[in-house]
Amino acid sequence: MALDAVGHTEDKTSGVAGDRLRALVDRIERLEEERKALAGDIKDIYGEAKSAGFDVKVLRQLIRIRKQEPAEVEEQETLLDVYRHALGM
Amino acid sequence: MALDAVGHTEDKTSGVAGDRLRALVDRIERLEEERKALAGDIKDIYGEAKSAGFDVKVLRQLIRIRKQEPAEVEEQETLLDVYRHALGM
Repeated sequence: MALDAVGHTEDKTSGVAGDRLRALVDRIERLEEERKALAGDIKDIYGEAKSAGFDVKVLRQLIRIRKQEPAEVEEQETLLDVYRHALGM
Repeated sequence: MALDAVGHTEDKTSGVAGDRLRALVDRIERLEEERKALAGDIKDIYGEAKSAGFDVKVLRQLIRIRKQEPAEVEEQETLLDVYRHALGM
């Protein structure tokens, strides 16, 4: 390793700025940890909902529907009906 | 809607505790927003890495490798070599 013009360590053979790379990796890993923690928190809420007697699958469906435009939801529900009829369901 | 014994609104026909459900949905949606923001932040760092001259695919691979046990990584690399040889690569 050697220092380049701006004081970063640089691997002499590869030319890769090791400390720059390490800083990027650290930041990504820190944010991924936070994301993992959030995923755990969300999972806990679903668990809480289940304990309170709510159906978790339906709750997930509800959350998904709320992300969509009402018109889009209606269109998909209509299509789902059409497909069900087509299969005699 | 009517109030139940503990003061929650409850839909008379369905028996679903509306405010309990709404509170759960709000908490889930808030955490999902945070998760989305984090995903955006992580994407930004990869963009920054790209601007700094790093190969994003290789960086993602690096992050993935760092999550694994070294022995597991070594085993997979050995197997990958074996598979490549088997295909004459």
